[in-house]
Amino acid sequence: MIFTAQVKVMPLKELLDPQGKAVMGGLANLGLSGIQDVRIGKNISLQIEATTADAAKQIAEEAAKKLLSNQVMEMFEITIG
Amino acid sequence: MIFTAQVKVMPLKELLDPQGKAVMGGLANLGLSGIQDVRIGKNISLQIEATTADAAKQIAEEAAKKLLSNQVMEMFEITIG
Repeated sequence: MIFTAQVKVMPLKELLDPQGKAVMGGLANLGLSGIQDVRIGKNISLQIEATTADAAKQIAEEAAKKLLSNQVMEMFEITIG
Repeated sequence: MIFTAQVKVMPLKELLDPQGKAVMGGLANLGLSGIQDVRIGKNISLQIEATTADAAKQIAEEAAKKLLSNQVMEMFEITIG
């Protein structure tokens, strides 16, 4: 069976996100008010062949730990759907 | 009130995603089997000051259309939470 896993990788809250700060400036320049913070991360969608959703989640977790995220600077969240 | 909007920006299904293909190759090289497709997009988290969730969603949508996504190549999804 094929499962779709979404891996959301975001910079840790404790760290600055200069890319997000730049985008926040850009949005202010465009006249969009009310935006107080912007943080930018990645969203990786994986199609995983596995027997159960749990097995698919385990594969996605291994992928996130080994390649998709840098755990020194980023955290990840996995949803199977 | 402050709302958190998550803007998920992904490459359109009709288009190739060479970055995703490269990551798929990398995962195969690491010995992770069962991954059949990888697509990589962005996840942007916005802190929006607005009176209602609907108003916050509207601001996020305008931001996504004007700056955060390129609608020729990408689609976006907004969740307020």
